[in-house]
Formats: sequence, structure tokens, C-alpha cells
Amino acid sequence: METSLHIGVIGTGTIGLTHIERIQTRLRGGKVVAVSDVAAAPGRRAAETCGGEFFADGLKLIASPLVEAVLVATSDAFHELYVLAAIQAGKPVFCEKPLAPKKDAVRRILDAEMAGGRHLVQVGFMRRYDAGYREMKRLIDARTYGAPLMLHCAHRNYSVGADYHTPMAVENSMIHEIDVLRWMLDEEYATAEVVFPKKTKYAGPDLQDPQIMILTTRSGVRIDVEAFVHCHYGYDIKCEVCCEDGIIHLPDPAFPMVRTQAARVTPICRDWSDRFVDAYNVQIQEWINGTRAGRVDGPSAWDGYAGAVTAEAAGRARDTQTRVRVELEPRPDFYRN
Amino acid sequence: METSLHIGVIGTGTIGLTHIERIQTRLRGGKVVAVSDVAAAPGRRAAETCGGEFFADGLKLIASPLVEAVLVATSDAFHELYVLAAIQAGKPVFCEKPLAPKKDAVRRILDAEMAGGRHLVQVGFMRRYDAGYREMKRLIDARTYGAPLMLHCAHRNYSVGADYHTPMAVENSMIHEIDVLRWMLDEEYATAEVVFPKKTKYAGPDLQDPQIMILTTRSGVRIDVEAFVHCHYGYDIKCEVCCEDGIIHLPDPAFPMVRTQAARVTPICRDWSDRFVDAYNVQIQEWINGTRAGRVDGPSAWDGYAGAVTAEAAGRARDTQTRVRVELEPRPDFYRN
Amino acid sequence: METSLHIGVIGTGTIGLTHIERIQTRLRGGKVVAVSDVAAAPGRRAAETCGGEFFADGLKLIASPLVEAVLVATSDAFHELYVLAAIQAGKPVFCEKPLAPKKDAVRRILDAEMAGGRHLVQVGFMRRYDAGYREMKRLIDARTYGAPLMLHCAHRNYSVGADYHTPMAVENSMIHEIDVLRWMLDEEYATAEVVFPKKTKYAGPDLQDPQIMILTTRSGVRIDVEAFVHCHYGYDIKCEVCCEDGIIHLPDPAFPMVRTQAARVTPICRDWSDRFVDAYNVQIQEWINGTRAGRVDGPSAWDGYAGAVTAEAAGRARDTQTRVRVELEPRPDFYRN
Amino acid sequence: METSLHIGVIGTGTIGLTHIERIQTRLRGGKVVAVSDVAAAPGRRAAETCGGEFFADGLKLIASPLVEAVLVATSDAFHELYVLAAIQAGKPVFCEKPLAPKKDAVRRILDAEMAGGRHLVQVGFMRRYDAGYREMKRLIDARTYGAPLMLHCAHRNYSVGADYHTPMAVENSMIHEIDVLRWMLDEEYATAEVVFPKKTKYAGPDLQDPQIMILTTRSGVRIDVEAFVHCHYGYDIKCEVCCEDGIIHLPDPAFPMVRTQAARVTPICRDWSDRFVDAYNVQIQEWINGTRAGRVDGPSAWDGYAGAVTAEAAGRARDTQTRVRVELEPRPDFYRN
Repeated sequence: METSLHIGVIGTGTIGLTHIERIQTRLRGGKVVAVSDVAAAPGRRAAETCGGEFFADGLKLIASPLVEAVLVATSDAFHELYVLAAIQAGKPVFCEKPLAPKKDAVRRILDAEMAGGRHLVQVGFMRRYDAGYREMKRLIDARTYGAPLMLHCAHRNYSVGADYHTPMAVENSMIHEIDVLRWMLDEEYATAEVVFPKKTKYAGPDLQDPQIMILTTRSGVRIDVEAFVHCHYGYDIKCEVCCEDGIIHLPDPAFPMVRTQAARVTPICRDWSDRFVDAYNVQIQEWINGTRAGRVDGPSAWDGYAGAVTAEAAGRARDTQTRVRVELEPRPDFYRN
Repeated sequence: METSLHIGVIGTGTIGLTHIERIQTRLRGGKVVAVSDVAAAPGRRAAETCGGEFFADGLKLIASPLVEAVLVATSDAFHELYVLAAIQAGKPVFCEKPLAPKKDAVRRILDAEMAGGRHLVQVGFMRRYDAGYREMKRLIDARTYGAPLMLHCAHRNYSVGADYHTPMAVENSMIHEIDVLRWMLDEEYATAEVVFPKKTKYAGPDLQDPQIMILTTRSGVRIDVEAFVHCHYGYDIKCEVCCEDGIIHLPDPAFPMVRTQAARVTPICRDWSDRFVDAYNVQIQEWINGTRAGRVDGPSAWDGYAGAVTAEAAGRARDTQTRVRVELEPRPDFYRN
Repeated sequence: METSLHIGVIGTGTIGLTHIERIQTRLRGGKVVAVSDVAAAPGRRAAETCGGEFFADGLKLIASPLVEAVLVATSDAFHELYVLAAIQAGKPVFCEKPLAPKKDAVRRILDAEMAGGRHLVQVGFMRRYDAGYREMKRLIDARTYGAPLMLHCAHRNYSVGADYHTPMAVENSMIHEIDVLRWMLDEEYATAEVVFPKKTKYAGPDLQDPQIMILTTRSGVRIDVEAFVHCHYGYDIKCEVCCEDGIIHLPDPAFPMVRTQAARVTPICRDWSDRFVDAYNVQIQEWINGTRAGRVDGPSAWDGYAGAVTAEAAGRARDTQTRVRVELEPRPDFYRN
Repeated sequence: METSLHIGVIGTGTIGLTHIERIQTRLRGGKVVAVSDVAAAPGRRAAETCGGEFFADGLKLIASPLVEAVLVATSDAFHELYVLAAIQAGKPVFCEKPLAPKKDAVRRILDAEMAGGRHLVQVGFMRRYDAGYREMKRLIDARTYGAPLMLHCAHRNYSVGADYHTPMAVENSMIHEIDVLRWMLDEEYATAEVVFPKKTKYAGPDLQDPQIMILTTRSGVRIDVEAFVHCHYGYDIKCEVCCEDGIIHLPDPAFPMVRTQAARVTPICRDWSDRFVDAYNVQIQEWINGTRAGRVDGPSAWDGYAGAVTAEAAGRARDTQTRVRVELEPRPDFYRN
């Protein structure tokens, strides 16, 4: 455990900066030695702050002998480029979700990784590292309350920016549920559907909000996920797993309850960075640990691909207002544990 | 307020007996003076206990000058017969839900009441008298948290008898949600759909359990109601109204929480008679009060009809596994408040 | 069950009026036939509203052949007068708590009732009729969680009027806990103590607020009761019974929880009439039922006396800032069940 | 931030081992380079596992040039010896609570540190690092709900070993509340008292259980702390701060609630290591960070002393069953922030 993993970070937006900050000050065994960003000014500033070298070109960062492992936190459109380059360079790479915006791009990543013959890619599905989901998965795996039959979930934001439009509810928000639920249930999806409840006055012309995505799994479990990104009360994630002998509820974060003004009042987070701060820390720590041990034990490129295929089916379902089959090929042996 | 309302009760099964008991010992202003049941033995026993006269024939009970108002608690198939007779006799009648098993029968009751020109019929949709639902309706009516957009509901029984089969989830269980939600939202339904999640091992061959009924209202509010009659943990009713500025939750009944055996444990009711005992009392008390004042201010025959039309649409939706339009004619002036 | 109990009500302040209203419109088997108040105007108005006869003199009301049973809701100073008169007249009497302000007066009532040889007096300790306390008592009696060892209680008001001064915390507020806890635990108190935490800015010069009363029972159970009458958030009653195998908590009333403004918000009552409305109704209904059956099965004059003796000890403890023994003579056979 | 802090750990019992494990695998910036234990076998095993050098003699470990900072996790009796040695050696030292069993010993540590003129000592009062307490302190410091007036606290263990006897309730259990509450309220104690509720059947002859410790602060805030170490339901920590405009409650840890067997069931921790695992991690991480930056910003020797003085007063109060003044000299300038 002597030497740290030397990490190069590409992308210094909000999420990139928080990853740098957590690696440098909170986590063990990693060190940011190189930073890249297409925007030179913020990129240089980030590099300076953390003491890493700045690379104007992300591909050069990947190629640099300084860098042992790569963390990709650019805008989605550039994920494929950098992940493929890291695979080419034979370097472990952590890529923020989604692995790529379209399933074909994810497929190319998958193929490249398999061709290289080494497990290198991990996707940033950080919900799997949340203590609440982990405990739920433990109870489900153990069948403590029997087999799961249906799930009721919700993904709510206080509000979103004007550039958030209808498809993002599936692609950026509920993609988290798409991943964490198939992981929790340990099976793939069979069908997808997206329906539109009454629209809130807070949503602009390009956004249908709320939306409800309905998924069924191959064994017949039915899942509904409400995405409500202008819920106007807080950032709130619900997950209720109805089993044969009991119903398991994702816990809310623990905040002090206060009795005041004729009410019992318990705070709700205002945004995702509060809600899942621990999950992000655990995720990157476990990635560092796994990488140093030569393993990829987090969400793999296959998980990114299964998510992309499901999201694409859900997108078609939403656009056609029909139920759509999720056509996912068999999992390659390479990705079996 | 001097003299009591003289009530004749037809039907002395579980629910009939509890109505007699509550009128005789708990409520104000009513008195059971006559009792009828096709089964003579239990009918006579009930009559004796409460000091009312026994009638072998329910129609004779209705006709008797002893009886000022009628309470029908027979099996569903006989509701139409007795309600029509009460209308004919010009006597106020409270009928357990459903007003009749088929919408045509309910329509005949509606037409008879309108033809008679007097409001006489009240249906036993007792959820409207539950304090939790009433408070929710108050908040929705006042738009305290803005307009409602979608609802998530559940209707769960610990278990049901072997004679409970697939259609009863809509007709006997979720008929309560069909009524209470249109009352709470103050609008009619547009479409109905019924889908089948994975089946629990506790359901026999004639029962699909759980089921999810999806309703939309004419203004576009989307409602999902889970019916899970072998949930194997308790009798539990959930209702969550997602509004533009907040989400309102139906409260659970208040029981002492106990810290014991490494858990905080709060009891859940085991059956509906515990859960809604107060609602039943308030319902019959308000029926007595209204009747003595010459009013019908509870759920009317029109409400029974709207419920039957919606349930029939949901039944067709379930049987065909399609979305079905709820075709409800305009509300007659007679039933406008 | 044919004829109603004819009740005369003395005192038409807030609590008197709500008793009249509940007897006339909500409860079964009672009828207010006579009303008295030293203030003629409100008294006459109350009499008119409920259709009872007005008596300027409460003693004449008690003597009137119209009246079968008496309900005393005057200011505390007059309780003794009317209760003794009712005993003299051999008429059942319900008296609001406290039975009298001083224990000597209560003792005289006790002696009069015993001399008369008939159980006639019931005291208005309505907490015993609250569903939450009843369920707690059931669990304690059954020793479901073993023997009780200590209790933590609180009695909080949003605020009180300027005339509420230090002694009233014991005599008017915590007198409820004094009664309900000895009933729940089924034993008498051994010692009393009253201590003063830091004073809230909302309390005036004549009021020490909050106060904590500490009681021990004869078997050694230790009880702390916080009285905080300017808590400035709501009317809130807490009771936590720590037993050998678990801790039982008095439930809060069931109100809809709302997710709004970055919080989960559950309403708390603003005053006692909301909080205990059901307990008041059940109390008077059971008094009517018991009286018609010739029984006193609610809190007796002995309970009023035990409360007065304990309150007086607590008062001395508060004034001397010492621990004081509660000296209660053995319960007369007359008051054993 | 390049090189790690080289830490020597003395004491490899349960708590020592968890500290080693967390430094080596979870935290950033520290490295265990040396290990000592009077019991050679477990000490050597621990040293081997973590790759540190084993020292049979803790004083030699402290003197070794390998070691930059010392963590003392021996039995309480040896704390003074090693802490004084570390001060002598001019090395930062983290010592598990209590700093020493008797206040005179703590006083000697205080004097030695002041004589040395450098801040070196931090005490393991880890509750200050718990997220719930931190949020409560933030609300109290900001006077969001006005000034605190009284606190109700509880410290409950499922059960304890046969060697746990009466004094340990103050010295080992409630010592945590003694520290965290004076930190949260930012003032010292004025008086202490310890009373005995009814004893649980689970406590042996040498243990009075439960106990209630009552503290008042110099400004008059009143605190009651229940210690109930055989509560027989779980490890549970309660803290309720009653302020002038609201009441703040320490949150329980977030676990999935399950509806099962006619109840809503939320797990409670079984022991302190579950309950405060995050607080322990944050505590040691912040100690490493502070030490590397040349600061002591956690609980100081002065805090250890104030705790010892208060605990000793509480012990005398318990033994004499009287209220005892807490005589704490003015805080030396050296320990002012």
C-alpha cells in the first residue's frame, strides 16, 4: 500500500473538481498528478490547486508516463474518445455516467475492452455505493422478505435549468435508477414505457415534467420510476421494494428533526451533491483500491451498455408512447463474474 | 332533535351487525327498530339483541310503518332490489358499496331516484369520512401546495380468502380508491388500465396479485393504485398526492412506537375494521344527522354510478390488457350540488 | 336504552359549552335538560341553544326533578359546593378536574360520598380515555416489555395567558400527568420534587417556565415531567415508558405529512382541544353509559384525592426546592374495585 | 500533502485495532509505522498485519525516530504514562478517552503540555465528529431556535459485561455526554447529581442500572442524561435540546424501514462501533490533517480535564446522593482559541 495511484483527470467542471478535491483531501491511496480541460483557464487553475501537471490535450494526458489511471469527467460527448484512448493505452479508466450518449458508442467501448483482453473500464454509477441501497440489496439477495414483486421509485429535483429538456429525464436522471435497480434485483429488463402525468406549471415548453418510466424485468418484476425535476421542494430519492413478505424502503438521510411552528420538521436535501456525498466518496475510494489491486470491481462497461440499451428503449417508448421491448444481447463471458 | 330516527337494517352479516351495534351503542339520534335477513336464525338473533322487530322479508321491512329509514347491508346482488323498494316507498336508504354489481343496475337506481324527484340514496363509501383523507382534501381544495399532478396509492390486505379472485381487486378493493380519489380531486376519470406485476406465491390460481390500476382524470392527473391483497404484513392504505409545490401523504393510524429487539416498531392494522373504525362511525352518524334533517349529504347514487362506470372500464381494461376510456355521461342536474 | 339521561350542566365557559355541544350532537344516550351559570347572559344563551331550562342558581338546578345527573364545569373554587350538593341529592355528578383546588376540600367530598354509601362522583381526568394512553396501559399491564423502570414525559403549550403563574404548572397542567401515570402504572407516588431549568424569555415575572416535576412511585419507578407552557411551537404531549425489555412511546396524533420547502413537515396541534377531542368525547360517552347503568367506572373521588395530595406535595417541593414525601393514607375499602 | 504522517499506535485491543485498520485502509495522509502492546503476541500480530515495526515497550516506540505522532489506545491506567512521554518527546499524541482515570492525572498532563509550550494532545471524544451532533451545534450556535433551556439525553446499551459496575455509567458511558454537551452548549457545568430509578432485573449486584445524571450549566441550562446499559433493545443515543422557539432532536442513523409482520420496523444499532463508525473515521482523519498542519483542533487536554472534573463531581454526587458543585478553575489562556 506504499505508493499512491497516480491519476489523471480529464474535465474540470463541477463533478471533475469535486473528484479532484476528494482524491486529494479525503480518500486514501490516490493522487491527482495531471489535469486536462478543453477550457484552458479553469483547467490550469484546477491543475495548480492540486499540484498536478496541466495538459491542454486529454489524449496527451492519457499517453503521459506520469499517469497510471484516468478519470473522465468531461461532457458526455467526449467520453468515448477518452475511454477508448485509455483502453488503447492499457490504463484503467473511471468514466462518469453515461459511458457514452448512444448505445453504439458504448458498444464500441465494450468491443475495444474485450479486444484488449483486460478489464479497465468502470462507470460512475455511484448509487451502488450508497449505504441505503447496499443494505436493501443485502436484504433482497438474502430473500429476507421473500422475492421482490414490484418497485415504486421516485427521482425528484427541486428544479433544473432551462436547458433540461424532455429526453434528459430518462438519459440523465432515471439512468441512475436503470442501473441501480438491475444491480439490486440482479436481472435485466424486458420492457420499457414512459408516460406523462399532468405537467407542472414550473416546466417550460421543452420539458414534460413529471414523467413516469415503467420497466419490467425478465422475471416479471414491475418497476415504476417517477422523475419530477421541478418538484419544488427538494432533492429526494425514493425506492420501495414490495416483496412477498414485506416492503423495504430506501432510508432518507439522517438530519435532526425539529419541533417548531406547530410542526415536526425534518430537512430534505436541496441537491444531489448533499444527498450522495458519501456514495461518491466510497465509489472513488473503492475504484482506487480496486485499481491498485489490478481489479475492476465496480460497474463495468457492460453495465454502462445495459444502461444505454435500456435508456434507448425507454426513449423510443417515450417518443412513440408505446411499450417497447428492451433487446439486450447475452452478456459476454468476458463480463461474467 | 327529540326523537330518534327509526332504522330498519337488511342484512346481518359482519358489516350489518357492526352497523347495528354502532347505531345502538355509539352514535346519536338513530335506533334500529327492525331487522331482516334471508337467513332467519342470525337475523332473529340480531333482532333480539338490539330489540328490533324481525322481518323474514326485507321488502316487508321497508314497507313497515315502523321504519323511517333503511340500511342495506346484504350481499351485493340484492342491493338493487332493496334500494329500489326504498325509493318506491319514499324512504331514505343507506346502501353499502357497491350500490349494485353492474353499472346498468346502478343506472336503474339513478333513474328511479330522479323519477321520484327526491334525494334518498346514500352509498357506503366510508373513506370520505376518514380524518386523514378529509384533511388531504382540505389541502387540495385550498391548493395549499398547488395543483395535484399525480397520485401514488396502495391498498394492501394481509391476506384474503380463497374465494377472492382477480376481478375483486377492482370491484371490491380499489372501488374505494375509485370513489375517494374522484371526490378528493373533484373530477371524473378519463381512462383506466390494469397491469400485473410479478405474482406472489401466496395467490392461488384464480387470483392475479398484486395488480396495479392506472387511472387518468379528465384534466390529466395520473393515478396509480396498487392492490396487493396477500401482502402478508398487514392492512395498509397509502395515498400520496404529488402537487406542484409539495407532496401530501395520507397518515398512518397513530399507535405507540416501541423500541425493542434492535428496532423501532410501530404497529400496522391487521384488518380494515381496525383501520377505518372511526370513518365508519362518522359515516353513519352523518347519515343519521343528514336524514333527520331531510338531506342526503354523503356519497349519492350518482357517486355510486360514477364508481360503477369506472370499475367496469377498469375491468375491461384488465381483461383486454389495454387502456380503456371511461365513458361517463354528463352529471344530471338532479345530482349537482 | 330507551330514554336519555337527563343532564344538568353548571358552568358555561369554554369547557362547559363543548360538553353541552358534544352531549347534544355527538354522543348517545344523554340530553342536556338544564343549564346554570353565575353569569346569567351566557348561561341563558347556552340554555336556549340546547333547549334546556336555565337556572340562575346551580343548587336549584341540582335539586330540580328535571335533572338526573349533574356535570360541573364551573371555575375550580365552586366545584366542592356543587359536588357536595349533588351527593346530598343522591345524583351522579361529573366534575371537571381538579375536584377541588385544595386536598382538604377533596377530602370532604370523599367523606361525603362514603357517608352517603353510593358511588356518585366522577372526575374529568380525560387522558385516561385517550387511545394512545389506553394502548400503553394495555402493554404495561400485560408486561409485554417487562416492568416499567422510569418515565420521561412532557406537557407543552404553545403559550399561556398572562394570568398563568408558577403554581399552575403543577396544579393545572401536570395534574393530568399525576393522574394518568398513577393509573397507567397502577401504583401511588412516594416522593415529589420540582426543579427549574433556565427560564424562557417568553415567561413573565410571575411564571417559572419551564419546570420539571420529578415523581417516584412506591415501587421505585422514577418519572420526570417537563411542563413548558411557552414552548412556542405547539401543544405537545410526550410520554415514554422505559421498561426492562423495551421503551413504549405515546403516539402523536395522525396528520398528513407533507414534503415541502426542503423538509418533511408533520403538523402538531396548536391546543389541547384539538389534541384530546376524541378523549373528551369518549370520556363523556362512557360517563353517560356508566351512569345509565348505575355505575361510576371512570376516575373516582379517590383519584381526585390522590391527585390533590400529590399536587400539594409537589407544590411544597417546588416552594421549598426540596424533595417531599407524598403522604397518602391507605385507600378506603369503599374505593377498591 | 506528499508524505504521510508516520504514526505509532500503543495498545492493540478492539479500539486500537480499528484505529490501525482505518488509518491503513480508509483514511488519507497517515501510516501506521510502529505498534506496541504489553501483550506481545497480539501486538506482534497487529504490527505484522499493518507492516509496522513492533515495540515491546511503548516508551521506546514514542522515542523512536520512526514515529512522528502517537496514538494511545491502551487501558485507561496507562494513558498518563504514554501521553506524558509523548509530550516530553515533543510529539503530537492522540489519546483515547478518558485522558486519565482521575482528574489529578489529567491535571499533570495539562501542566506538562503547558510547560512544553506546544499544543500536542488530543482526546478521543469522537461524538464531536458525528454529523448529527455537528448539525445540532450549528443550529444552537446560530440560535436558529433561540437559546437552549434544557436537554433530555439517553445513552443506552443493549447490555454490558459482568465487570461493568455502577461508577462506569458516569466514567465510561456518560463521559461522552459530559464532553459533547459542554462543547455543543459552549459552556461549563455548575452542578452534578446522579439518581437511581428502579433497577432492571438484568443488572447484577454491583451495578445500579439505569441511572440518571443531572447537570446544570453555569447559565442555568438543565440537562438530564439517562444511562441504561442493559436496556435490552439496542445501542441507542438520544439528545433533545429544548430551546425557546423549538426543540432539536439528534437523528437516528438511517436504515431501511421495512413493513413486515403488522409493523413498520426500522433497525437500531446493536453496538457503538456501528453507531459511530463515521464519527471515528472523521475524528482520526481530522486528527491526521490537523497534525500534519501543525495544529491540535480537536478536543484538547483542557477538554479532557473539564470532563474529568465533571465526572469526579458526578461520582461524588452519586456516592453521596446529593447535588455537588462542579469546581472547575478558569481556563488557562494556553487553552483559549
